[in-house]
Amino acid sequence: MYEHNIMATYGLIEYADASPEVRAVYDDIMRTRKVDWINNFWKSLAHDPATLRRAWESIRQIMGPGGALDPLTKELIYLAVSTTNQCGYCIASHTAAARNAGMTPEMFGELMAVVGMANETNRLASGYQVPVDDRFKV
Amino acid sequence: MYEHNIMATYGLIEYADASPEVRAVYDDIMRTRKVDWINNFWKSLAHDPATLRRAWESIRQIMGPGGALDPLTKELIYLAVSTTNQCGYCIASHTAAARNAGMTPEMFGELMAVVGMANETNRLASGYQVPVDDRFKV
Amino acid sequence: MYEHNIMATYGLIEYADASPEVRAVYDDIMRTRKVDWINNFWKSLAHDPATLRRAWESIRQIMGPGGALDPLTKELIYLAVSTTNQCGYCIASHTAAARNAGMTPEMFGELMAVVGMANETNRLASGYQVPVDDRFKV
Amino acid sequence: MYEHNIMATYGLIEYADASPEVRAVYDDIMRTRKVDWINNFWKSLAHDPATLRRAWESIRQIMGPGGALDPLTKELIYLAVSTTNQCGYCIASHTAAARNAGMTPEMFGELMAVVGMANETNRLASGYQVPVDDRFKV
Amino acid sequence: MYEHNIMATYGLIEYADASPEVRAVYDDIMRTRKVDWINNFWKSLAHDPATLRRAWESIRQIMGPGGALDPLTKELIYLAVSTTNQCGYCIASHTAAARNAGMTPEMFGELMAVVGMANETNRLASGYQVPVDDRFKV
Amino acid sequence: MYEHNIMATYGLIEYADASPEVRAVYDDIMRTRKVDWINNFWKSLAHDPATLRRAWESIRQIMGPGGALDPLTKELIYLAVSTTNQCGYCIASHTAAARNAGMTPEMFGELMAVVGMANETNRLASGYQVPVDDRFKV
Repeated sequence: MYEHNIMATYGLIEYADASPEVRAVYDDIMRTRKVDWINNFWKSLAHDPATLRRAWESIRQIMGPGGALDPLTKELIYLAVSTTNQCGYCIASHTAAARNAGMTPEMFGELMAVVGMANETNRLASGYQVPVDDRFKV
Repeated sequence: MYEHNIMATYGLIEYADASPEVRAVYDDIMRTRKVDWINNFWKSLAHDPATLRRAWESIRQIMGPGGALDPLTKELIYLAVSTTNQCGYCIASHTAAARNAGMTPEMFGELMAVVGMANETNRLASGYQVPVDDRFKV
Repeated sequence: MYEHNIMATYGLIEYADASPEVRAVYDDIMRTRKVDWINNFWKSLAHDPATLRRAWESIRQIMGPGGALDPLTKELIYLAVSTTNQCGYCIASHTAAARNAGMTPEMFGELMAVVGMANETNRLASGYQVPVDDRFKV
Repeated sequence: MYEHNIMATYGLIEYADASPEVRAVYDDIMRTRKVDWINNFWKSLAHDPATLRRAWESIRQIMGPGGALDPLTKELIYLAVSTTNQCGYCIASHTAAARNAGMTPEMFGELMAVVGMANETNRLASGYQVPVDDRFKV
Repeated sequence: MYEHNIMATYGLIEYADASPEVRAVYDDIMRTRKVDWINNFWKSLAHDPATLRRAWESIRQIMGPGGALDPLTKELIYLAVSTTNQCGYCIASHTAAARNAGMTPEMFGELMAVVGMANETNRLASGYQVPVDDRFKV
Repeated sequence: MYEHNIMATYGLIEYADASPEVRAVYDDIMRTRKVDWINNFWKSLAHDPATLRRAWESIRQIMGPGGALDPLTKELIYLAVSTTNQCGYCIASHTAAARNAGMTPEMFGELMAVVGMANETNRLASGYQVPVDDRFKV
């Protein structure tokens, strides 16, 4: 995640060096995303093919089109979480993904404003020990 | 925030007991939201009128209509952050707000799926020390 | 931590039921704090006397008078961290501790304002991927 | 935030390239802080002038002199939050700010000791499910 | 998650009211765990059968026997994460699960000690801006 | 913690430059760990000898052999927490420590899978506001 890592924990597994099981996932990632390369996240997870497959299939199901939320909205939510958690790799990769899905600079600015404000008011609510309103108790 | 708090840290300031400065903010909240009540978050913040005013004006600017992101999308993002931070009050109040803005049960389910997955992959990326791809370095 | 817990994980160990080893810590807590009761945090930790002793001795060393920071400042910092982490028990207990150390409602309001703002700008800095200024590289 | 970012998400906006609206904020930052440079946080936010202005005005109100807490105490609290959230940029910038406000190495050491201890006991309280003492229920 | 919720966001779906799709997951949970009841987490997720199925199948794969880590170790890790995140529901449910898997009070005490210490030193490392040792760069 | 830090906040204190008090801790670290070098975490903390000593003695007590949990299990838990908190230095150093204690690549893969899943379900539980089952209320 950080520059000091020339390599990931166990190195990155390139397509040429991957097992058939891993290649099958890589192929599906490239086909689904209509790209001809694999990003480092998957090349790292490839050391654990079960997790690679499970994570990819979950992502594909969750982030794909056809649901109640459109793909751009889902990418904005992903970036909101990654920013809140301050995950450097995830912020970089999901900023790129959100742009690919149509995020404009104006949308990014508003996203960050909401994320910042939510992080602020979350702590104000906790710190002031605000009791939940009866109206909010479903 | 939790049931053990019969009252907030310094109690809740009701409209009838509020100073003109606080009432002006309460009035603006009710007018802007087209409601006739004030939720406990603001009644707690009212102990610090400067923070009450600043927080409200920020929220009004950020969450209102007319931007690049529609109000529902912004509420979904707010709830995504609150869920990631596990703020009980904020989850309760922003689930209500998102419903008011049009969130359906299907949207809520997909929102939670994205939030859960992002929280998972954020840790996989960090734990595997995944180096940022050159393509993601703007 | 939450109301649903009538008892802590392994119950609370009262003074009357405590081993001599645990009583020695309880006595030191009451003597140091000049109080005649023990709060639930210590009664829970008492199930693991080694952790009870270590945590108490660390707290006593760190939070006591005579350092470069005065006790009130240290309590404000403790509450800032607890609020950021959204720990219900810790917010309740350290709000009480900070008041005992002299925190006024005005100080509490300013503390919350700083905590809220820092939580906001932390995410803006991460989300915008702001590079560290050379001047800040010691 | 990390070294891999030669540039921020949308690049840094230098004074010479800034709009009059952004320059007005930059000028106010330099005047208020009595410095002749702008740090990268603001140069990144400048892509969203509304957030730039709002964040700066909030910071100026909250962190300035004349309140119940002195500027050094507020900087210590800001650094405590940034450390708890593990925001690299914010730790670097607010360590510098706290030093400018008078933080000595001894104060820094004690600050870190409190921040570390609070992060430890926050989890002990949660993990042991410690119920809130009646005395702490305001 | 908190006592104020008599019901979850969209209510709990009991077996008698569940669709065949949801019942199939409930049946598998009870069969796998050799229990005759379903805990509230699944009854809440049942509002989104896709997430219910995916989460359960992931949990079953990850937490089951036969891997390099035994089930108790995995439960301890789950509880360590839940405690660090301060998730009330998860702490309660995974404390129960860890006990079922063989966690003794002594193990719980040591687990909490490690979790507390790691949370402390994580912040000391960040706050002191400790550079990664070359020896740790794989 | 990040590459931009050529040095830690106040520099690293090497053995040759250390006071007798600091050297005594360094000696004990090397003797206990059967190594002939000190990692940067301790060289940073050495600026505050009281914290250096306290942190080391706590770590030695908590992480050593002879308890209910074996040293490898404790290292896995430490890494789980560090990953959840996304502390770059701690992930690097505790991955090394866990390997030294016997963590295999298979164990690492399972550890990450559990950590990722726990981070996901923690948010599902909070976001769905799942009420704690009576059976889990001790």
